[in-house]
Amino acid sequence: MEYTVHEIAAMLRASFVGNGDLMIMGVNQIDKASHGDLTFMGQKKYYQYLETTKATCVLVPIETTVKPGEDQAFVFVADPYRAYITLMNEIREHSTLRVGYRHPSSHIDLSANIAPTAYISSGCYIGPNCTVGEYVKLHPNVVLMENISIGDNTEIMPNVTLYPRTTIGQSCLIHAGAVIGSDGFGYVNNVDGSYEKIPHVGRTTIGNNVEIGANTTIDRGALSETIIGNGVKIDNLVHIAHNVEIGDNTAIAAQAGISGSTLIGQRVRIAGQVGLAGHLSLADDVTMLAQSGVGKSITKAGAYLGSPAKEYSQAVRIEGGLRMLPQLLKDVQDLRHKLQILEQKK
Amino acid sequence: MEYTVHEIAAMLRASFVGNGDLMIMGVNQIDKASHGDLTFMGQKKYYQYLETTKATCVLVPIETTVKPGEDQAFVFVADPYRAYITLMNEIREHSTLRVGYRHPSSHIDLSANIAPTAYISSGCYIGPNCTVGEYVKLHPNVVLMENISIGDNTEIMPNVTLYPRTTIGQSCLIHAGAVIGSDGFGYVNNVDGSYEKIPHVGRTTIGNNVEIGANTTIDRGALSETIIGNGVKIDNLVHIAHNVEIGDNTAIAAQAGISGSTLIGQRVRIAGQVGLAGHLSLADDVTMLAQSGVGKSITKAGAYLGSPAKEYSQAVRIEGGLRMLPQLLKDVQDLRHKLQILEQKK
Amino acid sequence: MEYTVHEIAAMLRASFVGNGDLMIMGVNQIDKASHGDLTFMGQKKYYQYLETTKATCVLVPIETTVKPGEDQAFVFVADPYRAYITLMNEIREHSTLRVGYRHPSSHIDLSANIAPTAYISSGCYIGPNCTVGEYVKLHPNVVLMENISIGDNTEIMPNVTLYPRTTIGQSCLIHAGAVIGSDGFGYVNNVDGSYEKIPHVGRTTIGNNVEIGANTTIDRGALSETIIGNGVKIDNLVHIAHNVEIGDNTAIAAQAGISGSTLIGQRVRIAGQVGLAGHLSLADDVTMLAQSGVGKSITKAGAYLGSPAKEYSQAVRIEGGLRMLPQLLKDVQDLRHKLQILEQKK
Repeated sequence: MEYTVHEIAAMLRASFVGNGDLMIMGVNQIDKASHGDLTFMGQKKYYQYLETTKATCVLVPIETTVKPGEDQAFVFVADPYRAYITLMNEIREHSTLRVGYRHPSSHIDLSANIAPTAYISSGCYIGPNCTVGEYVKLHPNVVLMENISIGDNTEIMPNVTLYPRTTIGQSCLIHAGAVIGSDGFGYVNNVDGSYEKIPHVGRTTIGNNVEIGANTTIDRGALSETIIGNGVKIDNLVHIAHNVEIGDNTAIAAQAGISGSTLIGQRVRIAGQVGLAGHLSLADDVTMLAQSGVGKSITKAGAYLGSPAKEYSQAVRIEGGLRMLPQLLKDVQDLRHKLQILEQKK
Repeated sequence: MEYTVHEIAAMLRASFVGNGDLMIMGVNQIDKASHGDLTFMGQKKYYQYLETTKATCVLVPIETTVKPGEDQAFVFVADPYRAYITLMNEIREHSTLRVGYRHPSSHIDLSANIAPTAYISSGCYIGPNCTVGEYVKLHPNVVLMENISIGDNTEIMPNVTLYPRTTIGQSCLIHAGAVIGSDGFGYVNNVDGSYEKIPHVGRTTIGNNVEIGANTTIDRGALSETIIGNGVKIDNLVHIAHNVEIGDNTAIAAQAGISGSTLIGQRVRIAGQVGLAGHLSLADDVTMLAQSGVGKSITKAGAYLGSPAKEYSQAVRIEGGLRMLPQLLKDVQDLRHKLQILEQKK
Repeated sequence: MEYTVHEIAAMLRASFVGNGDLMIMGVNQIDKASHGDLTFMGQKKYYQYLETTKATCVLVPIETTVKPGEDQAFVFVADPYRAYITLMNEIREHSTLRVGYRHPSSHIDLSANIAPTAYISSGCYIGPNCTVGEYVKLHPNVVLMENISIGDNTEIMPNVTLYPRTTIGQSCLIHAGAVIGSDGFGYVNNVDGSYEKIPHVGRTTIGNNVEIGANTTIDRGALSETIIGNGVKIDNLVHIAHNVEIGDNTAIAAQAGISGSTLIGQRVRIAGQVGLAGHLSLADDVTMLAQSGVGKSITKAGAYLGSPAKEYSQAVRIEGGLRMLPQLLKDVQDLRHKLQILEQKK
């Protein structure tokens, strides 16, 4: 990045004091920043660094009274951390990618419909009847098999595979190695113990503003759809099975797994390594804590923990009891003994 | 797909009533199907839809007496859901792929032996001494490193990597991003706390009719083999370590992990997120329920649950006890108190 | 491989008896080896095979008195298994790869700095400002996005993705499908329940002699670094979140997950499917047993088990108590009853 303090203040519609022509070329924490860096005065514990930071430009709260040093500028904003996030999301990474570029080593089927502004890097495969929207970025070795639609401004990182009949909304970010639309894990038993595969002729539909983590896998529907709502955020190595439906703004942390046909509400939070059985539902605003296992539907918002999952307060009481269990066994032994003595005295 | 009712009935060797020239272009559930769709009368609860479905063609049980509507046909079969599966597996997906095609961007070593009917898409790498059977499909960016053998009719989805000395049987389906034959995780300790890598000079052997899920990893043997039996079905993000052997028709759900040198019997079912320690064995027909952890061999068929795993009925009793544990602690406190009173009265 | 017994003995600086011109073309276990194979007399239980093995060359302990058969040679070493490991690591696999080769289908940015001896296979992408060291091997379809540095002698297997600002040390081995430097999973909440992405402008730094497993994911730092120390060994499908720091010679088994900003000491061992919460630390020489969950920092070396994790001995006592819990409930019921009788007698 290369921006002047003046340009940064303009992007944030903020006022500043100091030299507006100073050039910003990087970002760092307030205590680690050096000359040429932008930083921000986030949590209170960092306030002590404001007078000593070597950053060239600091986003500070409006009420700040400290003055910037020489060769330094302060930009005044309501919430410095938020302003930093807004700024950086505006200065998108990889902005050096050429609009409309198509690397000659990519294979693009003649029936594919690619928007003029889409960027297609080396080694990509775009199969029959695919549609790629405006300003879409396909990084190296992305594979769109066929009948796939990618909404405007979506970015797909290297080595991602999209199976047939996958629809991705606008402004999504799909991380490297993710696989979307693969066959669900469904079979019927034959009498000899072998399996016959249930055909997966359904599709996968991903909403807008969805982020999907590296090496995450999402299976397509058997007959109908697997649906990921708008604003859903999914971490790395998550598994989402066939016919799952996930409500808007739900977040799922790394290595969690959701079995087939399960329905997840809106604003649900699923922590790392949580597992959900199939054909159940989670209500809106449920929080599943790490490593929990869910075997039954949860109909009430709130936090749940354990395998099988229990309401958080109950899980904590049980865990407390567990730690006393070895002593409890001794206590009961002791009681039994005392009781015997009493009984014998009779 | 584009088939007439006549052609569909012929594929199923079934009779039908209605117009045999009607064209079928898709499939859907009986309650969601529209004009041009095929559907099937599966579970009893769907029978109510038979008179109102908009599907053009319905697979119905032989004893069905309802008559098809205009512009509709019923095909009579013994088991509509099974018939649907059989039909769809016959009408293979991607059947539009050109037999014998080799995309010019793929790298094929001169020593590789590729059957004339194999399909090789863009960006594939086929290294020295590989053998690729008849009607094999390699989707974009598949990498076969060297000394690899792929049996007839096997399909390998995009971005799969096969390490040297991997053998895949016939009619397998390997999903996108899977890695087969990677180095096992084995080291010897040096005195300074660092590790020296144990060389993995073994191989990986996959049977016939095996399905391997997206982003699943299977390590090769250290000296000998990692073996996956015939008809084994493996879901997404599963880890199978070096020298594991898996019996025929075993099924392993997503995110399960099997440590080194463990032997799994036939028709075993391993649910999601189960973990097995190394150097143990599971008998035929064992079922490991979700999130279980196995630290010792299991020699008896049946269902097991928990970490460490217990027989299902024992695990259920313990879980019941756990829920009563906080109350039990109070009860024992209370007993102790009452006993003290009794003792003092003496 | 093709080496004479003479050459093998020379590589190990060892003496031998038998025919030094015998040709070795493979390796196998002592009980499975055949003509042309090298083997070693490892654990004591294999000593019985020394007189009957068909191996052409056997690494034996110095004190061995048995004589080799005809067409056989014994090489005398202090520790046969160690000698075997040393030998095989010297005879590197894929040694047939051509030094300095660059496949024409790879895309190499003009600003990239590739050492003359580096091997670059087909379908690779090397972006702007990347540096690739001497004798580096990039297997097919590896993607180095930009500003990436790869140290000498590092080998990267197929379909690996490195995000911008990733540094890999010397003599590392990165397995197929691994993703290094991806965006951390961090968001701030908007008032409407949606999320705003926290920009990840940090980097990822991997030390020397690190091995990273297939389809493992490592996120880059938000502002600063994710750091993997020297000699760290990471298995398949492991997740390491943003800003994690891992000390030298720590080993992490398959499917373990480490949440953001957690600090792991040196020589820590993390078993399979373990989960660590964020913002905590593990002391040097801690061992986390399989499937454990860590919610608090651990400051003392030793073994820990359970979710939440407890000292190993405590965890074992609790597990023992659990198995007695159903009986305990009955016992307490019984005690209560007997006590009531005693009380009534008063």
